[in-house]
Parts: sequence; C-alpha cells; structure tokens
Amino acid sequence: MTSPPRGFHVGEFRQRTSAAQALMVEQGLAAMLLTTEPEIRYYTGFLTRFWESPTRPWFVILPVSGDPIAVIPSIGAHLMGQSWITDIRTWAAPDYTDDGIGLLTDALTETVPKDGRIGIADQMESHVRMPLADLRRLEQALAPRRLVGDTTITRRLRMVKSEAEIAKIAHAAQIATRAFDRAPDHVSPGMSLSDVFRRFQMLCLEDGADWVPYLAGAADASGYADVISPATDTPLVSGDVLMLDTGLVWDGYFCDFDRNYSVGVPSADVATAHARLIDATHAATEIAKPGVTIANLFHAMNDVVNPGGEAMEAGRLGHGLGMQLTEWPSIIPQDHTVLVPGMVLTLEPSVTVLPGKILVHEENIVIRESGAAFLSQPQSRDMRVI
Amino acid sequence: MTSPPRGFHVGEFRQRTSAAQALMVEQGLAAMLLTTEPEIRYYTGFLTRFWESPTRPWFVILPVSGDPIAVIPSIGAHLMGQSWITDIRTWAAPDYTDDGIGLLTDALTETVPKDGRIGIADQMESHVRMPLADLRRLEQALAPRRLVGDTTITRRLRMVKSEAEIAKIAHAAQIATRAFDRAPDHVSPGMSLSDVFRRFQMLCLEDGADWVPYLAGAADASGYADVISPATDTPLVSGDVLMLDTGLVWDGYFCDFDRNYSVGVPSADVATAHARLIDATHAATEIAKPGVTIANLFHAMNDVVNPGGEAMEAGRLGHGLGMQLTEWPSIIPQDHTVLVPGMVLTLEPSVTVLPGKILVHEENIVIRESGAAFLSQPQSRDMRVI
Repeated sequence: MTSPPRGFHVGEFRQRTSAAQALMVEQGLAAMLLTTEPEIRYYTGFLTRFWESPTRPWFVILPVSGDPIAVIPSIGAHLMGQSWITDIRTWAAPDYTDDGIGLLTDALTETVPKDGRIGIADQMESHVRMPLADLRRLEQALAPRRLVGDTTITRRLRMVKSEAEIAKIAHAAQIATRAFDRAPDHVSPGMSLSDVFRRFQMLCLEDGADWVPYLAGAADASGYADVISPATDTPLVSGDVLMLDTGLVWDGYFCDFDRNYSVGVPSADVATAHARLIDATHAATEIAKPGVTIANLFHAMNDVVNPGGEAMEAGRLGHGLGMQLTEWPSIIPQDHTVLVPGMVLTLEPSVTVLPGKILVHEENIVIRESGAAFLSQPQSRDMRVI
Repeated sequence: MTSPPRGFHVGEFRQRTSAAQALMVEQGLAAMLLTTEPEIRYYTGFLTRFWESPTRPWFVILPVSGDPIAVIPSIGAHLMGQSWITDIRTWAAPDYTDDGIGLLTDALTETVPKDGRIGIADQMESHVRMPLADLRRLEQALAPRRLVGDTTITRRLRMVKSEAEIAKIAHAAQIATRAFDRAPDHVSPGMSLSDVFRRFQMLCLEDGADWVPYLAGAADASGYADVISPATDTPLVSGDVLMLDTGLVWDGYFCDFDRNYSVGVPSADVATAHARLIDATHAATEIAKPGVTIANLFHAMNDVVNPGGEAMEAGRLGHGLGMQLTEWPSIIPQDHTVLVPGMVLTLEPSVTVLPGKILVHEENIVIRESGAAFLSQPQSRDMRVI
C-alpha cells in the first residue's frame, strides 16, 4: 500500500485562510478566534497528540486580512515553528496568574478595531476550549470589541475536502479495510472481547495506522444493544455477532467504519438483517450525487432498514468524516445540505433484529462529480464468519 | 501481571458524590452541571471512547442532595443504564432545533430552587463541553437561577486518589514499564521514527493496554528540540537519543512517563545529562511526603537540573495524573499545594544538553503516609542503549 505524502503544501493552508477571510468579510467579522484542535490544525497544520493534556489553552487568531497569529504555550513553539505560521507568541504555561489571556488580549486589540467583531465557534459540534472564567475575562478586556458567533465558517469550509485531504482519509480507510480482512485470522471463540479489541488495534498499527483513537464494538447473540461501549472481558461464543467499529488515523485524518462477523454460521434473522444493511448503503450510494440532499440519503437508507418508520433511536444514519471521527453534517431527515464534490461521508444504517438487539453497518464514501465512490471496501450481503 | 478488578464498587461513586455534596453545601451551590468526560465519568463511571465524536453534548446534574441525573443522547442510554445512575433522561441527538437544552433546563429547574446557584467548572484545566450559543441559551432559560464557578470542587476531589484508582494507574504504569523494557528488542538503527512509534504502541497493547491515547517522542543527535511532536519518517541513526513518552490507559486510568534510549554508546554530554535527570527525580522522591508542598518538589528537582536558574521553558517539572494524561496540580514554584496520601504525580525534569537540545525524563509516583512510592520502574543513571 503506497502512502500519500504527509502534510500539505503551504498553498493549501493559504487557500483555506483566504476562503475563511472571504466569508469573514461577508459576515462583518474582523477576526476569528480558534481554540480547538481541529480548528487550529485546519488553518496551521499544527498536528500533535498533546491535546490529550487538558492543562494548556491554545489560541490562533485569524484576522480578516493577513496571516494567522498563534498565541500558544512555549512548549509548542518549536512544533508551531515548523508550520507556515511566522507570528508565534508564547507564554510559559501553565501560569496561575494569567494563563495567556493578557497575551491574547494584546494580540486581538492590535488586530481588531475598537468596533470590531471577533467570531468564535458557537454552534453544534463546537465548544470553546478554554476556562469559562478566562473567556469572560477576555470578553471584558476586549470591550468594546465583541466576541460573536462565527456563523459556522470553519465548519462549512471543512465539510468539503481537498484532494490531499481525501487521499489521507482514503489511506486511513485502506488500512482499516486490511485490518478488518485480517481480523478473522486473529480472533476465535473463547477469546475475551477485550483481547479482541487489543489484537485488532495491533492489526491497525501493523497495517500502517499512526494511531487508533477510536475502537468500539460488542459481541452478543443475535446482535448487540449498544455501539459505543468499551470491551468487556466476556469471551466470544458461537452464535455471537462481533462488531468492531474503528476510527484510526493516518496523518491526522480518520476513517470511521465497522464490520460485523458471525461467530459460527449466522441465524436466518441475523443474515437477513445484515443483507438489508448492505442494501441500505447501496440505496444511498446509488443516489449520492451532487445536487442530492443529505435528507435524500437518509430516506434512501431508512426506506430499506425501517420501511414506513421513523428515524432510528441512535439519531442518525451517518455523518461527515475527516479531521475528526465525526463531522458535519448529520444524516437525518432535517438536514437539507446539498451534496457537492469533495464531501466525505459515512453511511451508517442500523436494523433491529430482536427487541434490544441491533446490527449497524458502516461504509465511507466521497462525493464525486459522477456520484459516490467508496473509500472503504464495500461489503457483500453475506456476513463474514469466524 | 495480574490485573486489578475493572470498574468500581457503587460505594466509591456514592462516596465521591457525598464528598462533592459536602463541598457544595459549604459553597452554597444547589447543584453542579458536569459536561466533560472526566467529570461525568468520575461521578457515574460512564466509560466510553465515544467522546472522540464532537457531535453530541452530554450532561450530568449533581444536586446538593440525592443521586446524579444524566441528561444524555439516547445513543448512550444503554451504557449509562449499566452504571449506578437510575435517573437517565435522553433525547435523540443530534437535534438541530434543540440539542438537549430544553430537557436539561427542565431537569435543572426541577432540581434547583429559583434563587439557586448551579456550579460549573470554570478554572484552569477545564472547559465547558457544549456549544457556546447553547450555554447562553441555557443561562437565559434558567434565570433567575445562576450558573457560577464550581470553586474547583471536582478538581480538588480528583487530586486525591482512592486505592482502587491507584491500583489502576499502577497497572497502567506496569504495562508501560514492560513495553519500554521490550522496546530495544524491536527497534534498530535505520527504522523510521514513525515505525518505531507504531511498534511501541503494539507492544503497549500486547502487554495489556486497553488503548494508547498518547505517544509523543523524538530522535535526534545529542537530544531533541521538542517533546510533543508526532513521529516523522526519518530513520534512526547512531548517535541519536530516542525518547518515547506514552500515556496508555487501563480501565480508564493513565500512566504518563517516558524513557530515553541512546542509539549506540551515548556521548559524555548526553550520559551526564541523563544521570542528572535521574538524580533530580530522586531528589524529589526523597522529600515527597505528606506536608511537603508541590513548590518544594519543584525546587528539589530544579536545584539539580538547573542550579541557581529559573523555571524551564516548558513551564513545569511534572503534574498530577489519573483519569487524564495530565491533571492538577502543576509542579511549578507558584503551586503551594500540600502533599497528602493518595496523590499521584509525574516527576518530569528536563535539562539542556546543547542550545536547542534537551533531554526530559519522567517517572510516576504515589504519595503514601511514609513518603513517595514509584509506580513506574525507576531508571538507573546509565542510559539504555539500542
């Protein structure tokens, strides 16, 4: 498997920045303040697992014109210095008296006129990654400048991926495809689910994953009750359906899909349910073209798995995918986003086999001019058997 | 290696809840609103990797008396139902018109009197994990009830670990100790750093890690510039110092320490620097007893690695450890927290070998009545050689 190149050309970060700035002009924003990992990485390329530590806040200012300004803990100066960002201001965090707010205030007051509005992510799928007391302090220090919603500028831009981004997601999906293909050789009845999880993560790494931020799954007779649980130490037994759902990362980009395995020959109910899930994903990919809406995809799948019925309890039948395990939009009837080339989506239908027992199947696709292309290897209607 | 039991007895969650409630009475809080993974897990035991998805907000209300109330997406109902929490209210998230705020408002208005104050984490190492627009909507809907700072109640409780928590951290540290011991057999000159990282994560899993949320490191001649970077594809060469720093998880609890390996015989400068780091950790463990302060630990280490000098650029020489890779407190001169039995800390001194080249060493300890006990296997002054 040949890897695509790591990182991005500087031109891609400049293009993302300009695209955001054009929307900022439209929305009357003098700057945007970025505080979370994907926002900061999207514009700067700053890639580190150090976000796992909640201690230090990180800030990037995106002015309406000119290059981004990083206001970050000194521990990150060297790594940020390798990005295309040149204006990097640091403090020795953690600082118990002023953890970057003074430095950030100075940078913002220098960049934003007194009557200026500073956009900050405030809608679904966002949060502000800094202490609330510091956010309130910042708002006071910036007055009369105002912090306002960013009108989802970054979320909208991230929804449509570049070819370089798609290549990374595709590579992550290829790695997972191979790990899923190899899993039956490494899993057998009697093995505990926690050992299955460990072994599967090792396969992902061996096949080229940089890291494996997400693995959920379950194993139970005729389906499972839950798709978000960590592993228990219960051993696999004949008759179980084993589901593994992974979000592994290559160069900062995720895949996100699952596979179902039958331990022994599946029951008729389980086999039928699995075939129906495969049919549902194909019903969606057949219509997934530019101009079609997310709601259309929902109904295409729901008509197969849940004919005449309401939305599933889990709330959605897929979602966007890229720098995060799940991204905008959600495949629900209320989402009328129109598909455009470059969107990467998961299709994730689920069916109820018996009361409290479900099966979920998931594939990853990219929208092209001509329609949907699979990034994961599409599965056959026949379930894999262990 | 025998594993401790998974999970906690219900009594431990009840004890954490009562301890928080006693502090809430002192602070005049009618409830606390929890929104982040560690806060929610601390009181409920809700353990899932699904937090990797930014889509859905999760809420737990801790009233000043009575049991916690979970207000969560329906996708989590089954897993939360296996915890000790019985009052579980769900909505089909994501909901584009009201993503849980109505349900949360109802639960809070029912629990908190009109003049009541609701505590929310707002100090260092915290953030509020929900969209800012929803937080503002919630504040309006709750009026005249007020959201106020939680006076770090949860942070303070989490700083002192129970024996069951210490056993999980110790087990994670034992797994990492074994993986670090085995690493030299799996790493050799010519291997790319990204392959070293992959292989090391596989060793951690093989030795029993549930997952490996954190691995950073570097390899360069005479030391490294950076301790938070992901791996490059550069091959290891003789004369490099290879540093691997992992935070692996067992049953939801982290270890966090690193090891330095010399590729070939280390230079005199590197060997001296490494020996000094080991001496620094021992200088801290020798004085680390109940009654001593965090600032004392800082100075004990800093006097060895940086005699007569100021704090290091990285900002601190260690930190708390437990449910997260890094926790309160920070080992800095400004932290006057008094050590008590049950605190788990990392000691993380660093030295400059040459301008722009540092070495960092890290160990994990627990504070006992009689002094510090190592959870990681303390290293000798002699560097490991690959």
